[in-house]
Amino acid sequence: MSYANYFKEHREQHLNELKEWLSIPSISALSAHKEDVVRAAEWLANRMRQAGLEHVEVHQTDGHPIVTGDYLHAPGKPTILIYGHYDVQPVDPLNLWTTPPFEPEVRDNKLFARGATDDKGQLYLHVLAVEALLQQEKELPVNIKFCVEGEEEVASASLPPFLESHRDKLACDAIVISDTSLLEPGKPAISTGLRGLCSLEVTVHTANTDLHSGTYGGGVPNALHAIVELLASLHDKEGRVTVDGFYDGVPELSDMMREEFKKQGFSDDKLREELQLSALYGEKGYSFVERVGARPTLELNGVYGGFQGEGTKTVIPKEATAKITCRLVGEQDPQAVLDHIIKHLKEHVQPGAKLTITEGEKARAFNMDPSNHMLQVAADAYEAVYGTRALFTKDGGSIPIVETFSRVLESPVVMMGFGLPNENLHAPNEHFNLENFDKGLLTLVEFLKRV
Amino acid sequence: MSYANYFKEHREQHLNELKEWLSIPSISALSAHKEDVVRAAEWLANRMRQAGLEHVEVHQTDGHPIVTGDYLHAPGKPTILIYGHYDVQPVDPLNLWTTPPFEPEVRDNKLFARGATDDKGQLYLHVLAVEALLQQEKELPVNIKFCVEGEEEVASASLPPFLESHRDKLACDAIVISDTSLLEPGKPAISTGLRGLCSLEVTVHTANTDLHSGTYGGGVPNALHAIVELLASLHDKEGRVTVDGFYDGVPELSDMMREEFKKQGFSDDKLREELQLSALYGEKGYSFVERVGARPTLELNGVYGGFQGEGTKTVIPKEATAKITCRLVGEQDPQAVLDHIIKHLKEHVQPGAKLTITEGEKARAFNMDPSNHMLQVAADAYEAVYGTRALFTKDGGSIPIVETFSRVLESPVVMMGFGLPNENLHAPNEHFNLENFDKGLLTLVEFLKRV
Repeated sequence: MSYANYFKEHREQHLNELKEWLSIPSISALSAHKEDVVRAAEWLANRMRQAGLEHVEVHQTDGHPIVTGDYLHAPGKPTILIYGHYDVQPVDPLNLWTTPPFEPEVRDNKLFARGATDDKGQLYLHVLAVEALLQQEKELPVNIKFCVEGEEEVASASLPPFLESHRDKLACDAIVISDTSLLEPGKPAISTGLRGLCSLEVTVHTANTDLHSGTYGGGVPNALHAIVELLASLHDKEGRVTVDGFYDGVPELSDMMREEFKKQGFSDDKLREELQLSALYGEKGYSFVERVGARPTLELNGVYGGFQGEGTKTVIPKEATAKITCRLVGEQDPQAVLDHIIKHLKEHVQPGAKLTITEGEKARAFNMDPSNHMLQVAADAYEAVYGTRALFTKDGGSIPIVETFSRVLESPVVMMGFGLPNENLHAPNEHFNLENFDKGLLTLVEFLKRV
Repeated sequence: MSYANYFKEHREQHLNELKEWLSIPSISALSAHKEDVVRAAEWLANRMRQAGLEHVEVHQTDGHPIVTGDYLHAPGKPTILIYGHYDVQPVDPLNLWTTPPFEPEVRDNKLFARGATDDKGQLYLHVLAVEALLQQEKELPVNIKFCVEGEEEVASASLPPFLESHRDKLACDAIVISDTSLLEPGKPAISTGLRGLCSLEVTVHTANTDLHSGTYGGGVPNALHAIVELLASLHDKEGRVTVDGFYDGVPELSDMMREEFKKQGFSDDKLREELQLSALYGEKGYSFVERVGARPTLELNGVYGGFQGEGTKTVIPKEATAKITCRLVGEQDPQAVLDHIIKHLKEHVQPGAKLTITEGEKARAFNMDPSNHMLQVAADAYEAVYGTRALFTKDGGSIPIVETFSRVLESPVVMMGFGLPNENLHAPNEHFNLENFDKGLLTLVEFLKRV
């Protein structure tokens, strides 16, 4: 049977299984979901065994479990390590979801659920591709290893020590990851670069209690005034980060790189219309793909303080908080960037206000040479299925563990994504376009056969 | 029996009754508490009847009920109208209350509960004073009317039309309100000025969905960046409001007024220590009492957008909201101030962001001449009980209805407060110092006897 027919025949079963997995709310950031994360790991381990993988294990860690498994019956052939993550992002604001995030539903050939594209849906393709090869050929053309974590959305604390201590067990000729996107429908891409990441949370404290704005208003510090002034000081009017030292280690965009970005044929106007924006916004002098692919950012992900209920409350709040993440490029050092930001915050906070600062994730940016053999084979596999060869791109996102994988296992990393940029990952109504579910399965089979 | 002994004998009963009333969560701003607000109105009406007041009625309105009652058996004597409110502020953040806001508890001779001082506790003094006079003298030295509303914390929408349509029923020689504070323990004050108020809520909208900060970060508008920049633009570095036209109608502080403020002997340093602040903050060139008593403000009462949970979420939020109130002085026109602010917001919002603006309360500032006979009698009454004559002050707060009362009923307003400035009104751990509960009862009896 052709693989196309095989996957067609099993499509309903495969989707139902995936829905079952997606209905487990494995939100790694929220401690209330710790048990759900474990359940999602066990679901995956069982499904891997069912697919024919061997030595499947759920490893306990200080955080969430790591799932491994392998099928090593192709002596002399390359070994491919599949990495992915089964944990998902939080889901608020819940009211903006058309259907509940953990009640997966297919609408318009799209599967809606938290984790549908990031990353359960994409990771699941690999399990199915291996299963299909074993069912159809009774053997695999390569050696396969899986290493799947449950902490990708919370900085992968347990994976680096796990990689170090299982260096031999996980040794491989290439690491394959499906956690990125096509450029647009029908236009596959292999990411050869990821931005790094660092994060911090800052709370501004003023008086020792909330105060009445009538009795005190105008005469005492207001934590909200202090925080908006402080946060506004982080960028200039043209979108550039004003923190001293922030851009240390950022490579200048060469004319050649600008040419590469132009090749993507990305339309800023089309994006603007799609997002219903009157204008895009960002650092002056760069196009959207350049900003996202080659420039660092400092983003506010959450700001809150004071009254959030219905109506009015004439209160002067005693504290206000901001959550900040930076995307890093080139040689930017995450710790140095955090140090620079913290120095800036301390220097710019208004009199009468105090700061509490908590550092979070720290990951360097990552880059691959597109001429690598494994990347070229991956591009061929896309071409065989999509009818168009994958472009080599720089991705704006961060998979902090990629750099670690590449360094510890000394192997190339092939980022073969099957998502789309507008699939609302990390936002309400996350979904996975099933056209790429179908084509993704065929592309992965093709890749494993050609390696 | 002396009134001191009378009140001592009934003290436990009076406090238990007040606790019962305070345990009704009559939060006028939250529609979920609509029934509680009605229950609080009915509790008051019953207690007024029990005190001996006549014609007690609970009037339905488009909002929350208004409670009236009277005792008009002193022909030829002045008529005093008591105004107060039985609604209370919201209570979040709940976790900062030592004991729950609607489980009143006395600690250290202070009664802790939402509404303890603002305004159930203070209003209740009037019911008890009238009851005491009727019990002890079998008659009142003056005619008494009550008019109590349940919408003071949400801009008193129903009261002005009620006053207009009940002008004759409510006609009086003075309006007495206990909803303000002593200067400090043992230092009574009669407020001869209140700041006006206007409010608005502004939401900044960017893209039509939340976006992943990896895929989009640096290339699209972030609602949080837009709002912090916009809000920061409302003040300069020295605490002055930068909105064009904001200060129109604000009287300059004369040397004489500065002298009056100095008489209060207020210590900025003491306040700073009490609030555990390294510095006070406000418009340059003014002391704390001047800022609060004679200068307008623009305060952020709430700001929120994006992720507020545990940990990190790399999201670019599609919207962010700010709640703003202004305190007004002199001839500032609330609508004009709102118009100026809205114009400023529209002119200063960054490209790619849109605004939704909702206007709220609008009330003018209010001023009384301290030489008025009724105010002088009130000051005498305080002196008789506290041993020190009340100072005539300007209060930073707003009771928007005061100006309306004075205008519609053409009567002087006597603001005889018994709270203290640090009783956490509108904040967690609101309380009423019971020393002023006891002295307040005697002061009000004294006032009614002397009028």
